[in-house]
Amino acid sequence: MQLLKDRIRKDGKVKDGNILKVDSFLNHQIDVQLLEEIGKEFKRLFEADHVTKILTIEASGIGIAVETARAFGVPVVFAKKAKTKNIAGDVYTSKVMSYTHGREYDVIVSKDFLGPEDRVLIVDDFLANGAALEGLIKLVKDSGAVLCGCGIAIEKGFQPGGDELRKKGVHLESLAIVESMNPATGEILFRE
Amino acid sequence: MQLLKDRIRKDGKVKDGNILKVDSFLNHQIDVQLLEEIGKEFKRLFEADHVTKILTIEASGIGIAVETARAFGVPVVFAKKAKTKNIAGDVYTSKVMSYTHGREYDVIVSKDFLGPEDRVLIVDDFLANGAALEGLIKLVKDSGAVLCGCGIAIEKGFQPGGDELRKKGVHLESLAIVESMNPATGEILFRE
Repeated sequence: MQLLKDRIRKDGKVKDGNILKVDSFLNHQIDVQLLEEIGKEFKRLFEADHVTKILTIEASGIGIAVETARAFGVPVVFAKKAKTKNIAGDVYTSKVMSYTHGREYDVIVSKDFLGPEDRVLIVDDFLANGAALEGLIKLVKDSGAVLCGCGIAIEKGFQPGGDELRKKGVHLESLAIVESMNPATGEILFRE
Repeated sequence: MQLLKDRIRKDGKVKDGNILKVDSFLNHQIDVQLLEEIGKEFKRLFEADHVTKILTIEASGIGIAVETARAFGVPVVFAKKAKTKNIAGDVYTSKVMSYTHGREYDVIVSKDFLGPEDRVLIVDDFLANGAALEGLIKLVKDSGAVLCGCGIAIEKGFQPGGDELRKKGVHLESLAIVESMNPATGEILFRE
């Protein structure tokens, strides 16, 4: 998606440790018009899939999920990061390793909001090692819903998550795949 | 806002301990069309204030903030709950007591995204004791921005947060103010 790549080149900041900061427009401050275009693009890419629900994980996926859901005319469900070991009520759960925070956490979705009648598109802002996405895919499978695919705004193509999911046959669409970044020059190369 | 009150009466669930569950349409599963109407209503209520930025706090405020920002044509900034005691970089910070989780946490916003040139509307899904809102108001004041007001979807009118903020002169608009709830009958009374 050219609009997103241009924006990443203009306002993204490359930091040491393979960090790409896009917090001026995507995940701290949010450019809502850009989200709207991202939502429309996911609609175009998954048009044929008869999606009934958009699934994401709190917090930074929620904005993208809301605009994608608006484009499809369906509800959002966002998975929650469980704060206690006591998971209350009837929920699907999976464990996700957070490399950013160096710990594993539980991700939950109420059984009321995901079931065999659903056709689910998972969306998120970033894909790197794929841990969060694998956790969400497990929730969808546990619920008996159909996984239509995954829509990602920015994939770090030099990390393994995206290509591993593609090998497994998941229909994964990333709107911008970063092939390499140079923290010294700020240069960002996208996969064509 | 009649649409929201009707929806709360239809799909809200009253639980013991003054809990109102609206997770089928507002803060776990999200009805995006309802959010869109909420956003338009906040636009109508704060039309004259020349709002330049919508501020909320992760995670459940983000959906409402995105749709409100779309109605105004301005960006969202969402405050983050800091996960470590080490707060990195140049941020505004305030402490918020979470009664739900029984602990205090730090809430942060980057100084890059809030400043004296901004006119800020704070939005959130719930207002009860007002701790989160007070924390966000402090961030706005610390940044030198103008606080235009606060837009809340559901206020628990039997808890003190809303009325305390009104006494302080904050322009607070709650779209549905619950005056009382009965967990035995499920009955919900709204303030007129």
